[in-house]
Amino acid sequence: MYSKFPHTEAIFILIEAANGFYTKNWMPGTSGNLSIRTSGANEPLNFVITASGKDKGALTPSDFVIVGVDGAPIEDTEHKSSAETLLHAAVYQKIKEARAVYHVHTVQAALLSNYGLTDGESIRFRGLEMLKGLGLDTHDTEVELPVLENSQDMLTLSQQLPHRIHRKVPGFLLKGHGLYTWGASPFHAKRHIEIWQYLFEYRLGELMLQGVPSSPALHSVGS
Amino acid sequence: MYSKFPHTEAIFILIEAANGFYTKNWMPGTSGNLSIRTSGANEPLNFVITASGKDKGALTPSDFVIVGVDGAPIEDTEHKSSAETLLHAAVYQKIKEARAVYHVHTVQAALLSNYGLTDGESIRFRGLEMLKGLGLDTHDTEVELPVLENSQDMLTLSQQLPHRIHRKVPGFLLKGHGLYTWGASPFHAKRHIEIWQYLFEYRLGELMLQGVPSSPALHSVGS
Amino acid sequence: MYSKFPHTEAIFILIEAANGFYTKNWMPGTSGNLSIRTSGANEPLNFVITASGKDKGALTPSDFVIVGVDGAPIEDTEHKSSAETLLHAAVYQKIKEARAVYHVHTVQAALLSNYGLTDGESIRFRGLEMLKGLGLDTHDTEVELPVLENSQDMLTLSQQLPHRIHRKVPGFLLKGHGLYTWGASPFHAKRHIEIWQYLFEYRLGELMLQGVPSSPALHSVGS
Amino acid sequence: MYSKFPHTEAIFILIEAANGFYTKNWMPGTSGNLSIRTSGANEPLNFVITASGKDKGALTPSDFVIVGVDGAPIEDTEHKSSAETLLHAAVYQKIKEARAVYHVHTVQAALLSNYGLTDGESIRFRGLEMLKGLGLDTHDTEVELPVLENSQDMLTLSQQLPHRIHRKVPGFLLKGHGLYTWGASPFHAKRHIEIWQYLFEYRLGELMLQGVPSSPALHSVGS
Repeated sequence: MYSKFPHTEAIFILIEAANGFYTKNWMPGTSGNLSIRTSGANEPLNFVITASGKDKGALTPSDFVIVGVDGAPIEDTEHKSSAETLLHAAVYQKIKEARAVYHVHTVQAALLSNYGLTDGESIRFRGLEMLKGLGLDTHDTEVELPVLENSQDMLTLSQQLPHRIHRKVPGFLLKGHGLYTWGASPFHAKRHIEIWQYLFEYRLGELMLQGVPSSPALHSVGS
Repeated sequence: MYSKFPHTEAIFILIEAANGFYTKNWMPGTSGNLSIRTSGANEPLNFVITASGKDKGALTPSDFVIVGVDGAPIEDTEHKSSAETLLHAAVYQKIKEARAVYHVHTVQAALLSNYGLTDGESIRFRGLEMLKGLGLDTHDTEVELPVLENSQDMLTLSQQLPHRIHRKVPGFLLKGHGLYTWGASPFHAKRHIEIWQYLFEYRLGELMLQGVPSSPALHSVGS
Repeated sequence: MYSKFPHTEAIFILIEAANGFYTKNWMPGTSGNLSIRTSGANEPLNFVITASGKDKGALTPSDFVIVGVDGAPIEDTEHKSSAETLLHAAVYQKIKEARAVYHVHTVQAALLSNYGLTDGESIRFRGLEMLKGLGLDTHDTEVELPVLENSQDMLTLSQQLPHRIHRKVPGFLLKGHGLYTWGASPFHAKRHIEIWQYLFEYRLGELMLQGVPSSPALHSVGS
Repeated sequence: MYSKFPHTEAIFILIEAANGFYTKNWMPGTSGNLSIRTSGANEPLNFVITASGKDKGALTPSDFVIVGVDGAPIEDTEHKSSAETLLHAAVYQKIKEARAVYHVHTVQAALLSNYGLTDGESIRFRGLEMLKGLGLDTHDTEVELPVLENSQDMLTLSQQLPHRIHRKVPGFLLKGHGLYTWGASPFHAKRHIEIWQYLFEYRLGELMLQGVPSSPALHSVGS
C-alpha cells in the first residue's frame, strides 16, 4: 500500500509545515506535534515526530525523534518524545493509509470543543463546499468530528481512540486541548488542518451571530 | 477591445496572486481557483486556470491548465481542470471586458451568504467609501451582490449565471461556498477581491454589533 | 521650525510604510493615501503623496506625485493625485508641525465611525495606557477623536476641516470611510496609526462585550 | 544558580523577539519593553532593556540601555530607559530564576483586565491543556493571573509588585495597560507570552459566546 519515506525528507517537510502553522498562531507556546510515518506497509511501525517542548516557529533538523509503535525513541537521543506520541501511534495503527499525523492547538478548536458540540460527543458540519476537501463528493452531506475528553493518561486515551475515529473523517478533537488530523501524505494532512480550521472559524462565527436569522435555501439549480 | 495575453505572464501573475490570497487565509485547503483570459477579442475564448487540488500557497508554473470555452484543456496535460472552470467560462462570455476571474473561499463570504442576505437573493452595501473601488462615482449609492444557491451541477449553474450577474457589479457569491469576482485586468480583479472582503468584514462586524445603535448622519458638508 | 525633506527619501519611507499597512489589511483595494511635507517652514507648502489608484502593497518610486497647496501636481506627471489630496493640504496648513499625513481604510475605523460615537460627533477614549503614545502625560485623561460626515465634495470638506481638528489630538475619522492621522515625522505618523488602530480594536471589543460587566477600579497604587 | 549573559547576545535575542511580537500586533505604536538579566547570580542586578519610544518592528543594536537595580543606565547613553524599567527590576529581584522579562500591549490583555476579572483582582484559567506550558503538570488545575491597577507612579507600583506576584505563575496584568511575563530563559519568556495570549483569546471568545451553553464533561478516560 505504501513504501518507506526517507527520514531526512520527512524532517524538512515537518519543519516547513510547523513554521507555517506557527505563523498562523496554530502552534503557540511550543504546543502541538507533527509526525510522518517513515516505515513501509509491511514493516513494524515507526515515525518521525517533533521532540517535546520545541518552538514550532524555529525547528531545526535535530529537534525530531524517531519512534516506534510504543512511542519510545528507536535511536539514542537527548530528546524526549511527547507523551502524546502514543496518540500518533494509535492513529497510524488504526488508519492504515495515514502517512502524516498533525496536531495543533488553535484557540478556535479549544472553544468549539467546549461550546460547539452538536450532541454530547461530536461536532457536525453540513452544507459547506469546503467539506469536499475532506474527501467528500458533495457539500450537501454531513461530517461528524469526534470530541474526546482530555486526559493526561495517554495510554488509556490511545486505547479509546480506535473506537472513536474513522477512515472517512480525518480528525478528532480533545476537549480544551486541540485538533488531531491526518492524511495519506503530508500534503493531505496540511490540507485537512486548513479545512478543519476554516470549519471551526465558520462555526464560531455562526455561534457569535446567534439571534441573526439564517437565510433559507435559494431557488436550487435545475429546480 | 482587448488583445492576447501571454500565457507565461498570466501564470506568473496568478502564482503571485494565489500566494497573497493564501497568506491572508482566503484560499485554505487547496480551495478556490484563479484564471486569466489569454485569447484576444475576436478569438475563440481560452484562458489559463489553476489546476484542481493544488496548494495555493505553493503553486509552480506546471500547476495550470489552458482551457477553452467548454472548460476542457486545450493541450495534453496530466492535470484536471476544476469542475468550476465552467463558471469562469460563463463569466468571460457574459462580461466581455473581464480579463481575470478570481474565486476564493473566505470564512466571511460563506457566513454572509448564509446570514447576511438583505432580501432573499442578494446582499446590499451602501454608504461606504470603499464602494468607489468597485467603479462607482460616489459612496452614497447602493451595490447589490447576487447570491446563488450552491450546487455540484456546474453545467446548470453556468447556464443560470448570465441571468444573475451584471457588468456594473463585479462579483457573486455561491451560498456556503465562496466569492467570484473579476476585472478588466488581473490588477482590477485583485482590487475587487480586497474590496469585497473589506465589505464582508464590515457587514459581519455590523451583524455582531446587533443591539448597538448606529449613529445618525452628521451635519453634512455644505449643508 | 522644520527644514526641507528630500523627495527621494520621502518616497522610500512612504513605500515602506504603505507596504506595512497593506500587509495589516489597513489599505486594501488601492485605498488610502500617504504623504510627507517636503517644503521647509517658510516656503510655500508642497508635499509628496501616493498617486491615485495604486496597489499599496506594490508601490514603486514612480507611483507618487509632488503637489502644492491646491493639491495640483507641481511637475508634469502622468499620474492623477487623489481628490483627497486637498485634505492632506488642509492638515498641513492647520497643523504647522505635521511632517507626514497618513490616511488608511480599516474595517474597524469604518465600523466605529458608524457605531461607536460617544456623542454625536466624536469618539472618546479614556483610561488606556496606550493613549500616552499620542503625546499625553498619563493614561488617566480623555481623548476626543473628531468624526466628520463623509463627502465627495473635497473642497468643502477641506474648508470644514480646520474647525474640527486640533494640535493635541492627531487625527480624525470620515464616517464610513477611514482614518486620517499625522505626526511631526513619518515615524510619529506611523506610531499614531498603530495607536488609533489599537484604540479602535479595543473599543470594538468593548461594544461586542456589551452585557459583560466591566470591573471596577482596583485598589490604587499609593492609596 | 545562573551565570552572566553576554550583552551582545541579549540584544540580538531581544531584537528578534520584539520583531516577532510587533508582527503579531502585540507591541504597536512603540509600546512595551523587553529585557534580559545579564548579571550572574551573586552580582548586583543589571539587565539590558529596550530604550523608550522605539519602533519594536525596527530595533537596532543601539536601541538598548544597560541598567542597574534602580532602573538607571549604567553607562553613558543618549537613550532614556522607560519609567517601567523599575517593574522589570522588581520582577528580577523577587523572582530569582527570571532571566528575561517581557512586557507587551495586546488589545486582548487590555480588554480582559477590564472585563474578564474572575474576582476583584485576578483572572482564573482552568481546564485548558495549554496551561501545562506555564509549567503545570496537568490541565486540570487552576491558574490565577494577578491584575494590578495601572499607575504612572512606577516607584510605588514596583514596591507593591512583590506582594502580588509568585514564582509559580509567571505574569501579571496592569489594568487597561498590558501584560508582563518572564521566564528562566528568553525562550521561556517568549513561550509564556504566547501562552498567556492564547489564554486571553480563549477567554475573550468565551465572553463573546455568552448565552451559548458550554458542553458538560464527556465520559472520562478510564472511567
